[in-house]
Amino acid sequence: MVNRVVDIAEKFSLFSEHWSPKVVATLNDYDIKLVRIKGEFVWHSHDNTDELFLVTEGRLTIQLRDGDVTLRSGQLYVVPRGVEHCPIADGEVQAMLIEPTGVVNTGSAGGPLTATHDNSLMG
Amino acid sequence: MVNRVVDIAEKFSLFSEHWSPKVVATLNDYDIKLVRIKGEFVWHSHDNTDELFLVTEGRLTIQLRDGDVTLRSGQLYVVPRGVEHCPIADGEVQAMLIEPTGVVNTGSAGGPLTATHDNSLMG
Repeated sequence: MVNRVVDIAEKFSLFSEHWSPKVVATLNDYDIKLVRIKGEFVWHSHDNTDELFLVTEGRLTIQLRDGDVTLRSGQLYVVPRGVEHCPIADGEVQAMLIEPTGVVNTGSAGGPLTATHDNSLMG
Repeated sequence: MVNRVVDIAEKFSLFSEHWSPKVVATLNDYDIKLVRIKGEFVWHSHDNTDELFLVTEGRLTIQLRDGDVTLRSGQLYVVPRGVEHCPIADGEVQAMLIEPTGVVNTGSAGGPLTATHDNSLMG
């Protein structure tokens, strides 16, 4: 078989840092990433792509300029391209992100939370 | 806010038929679909795209020509483009599929299980 099964909980057991998405699979030119979230991120947008958030553990709020979206485990939300957003979580959240390969997590905002491409948990 | 939160379990409560994927969100030109699976599908492939399966309930086997892949809840697998596959499940499975909009579920195999685009559960 060409690819391997990805067990989401098992992959999360392999890292503990926050705001550091790990690519666990690819779908054409998209990355499937897992990320641990805690605290507040930075306001940013992605001009050229939507971004999917699927929460698998915990409770995530995605702040938008016109209101907040709150996701629990088993809920997903797609942030439309160009829409400013800022994830925030009181407790720890485990989430899956899907977006095209090469998208920078902080968009054009930059700053210390900017993550590098990390596919160390692939395969 | 522009999009709505998708609660996967709540969406599954709205339909009961098998092999009839429902689009619940879009991500750029990709569809996020939910499908109930039971029994055996048809061998097929998608020449131009990978296909992501994420199981949220039950136990799904994806038969491949060189071996089976079995997924439980919380596990995902990407069938590479061009790879023949045939999903099969003894019990009922609830799964999320992600693939580009317009991909036909039976690929080039056709037949009675071919589904039409159904976005009646969007929004």
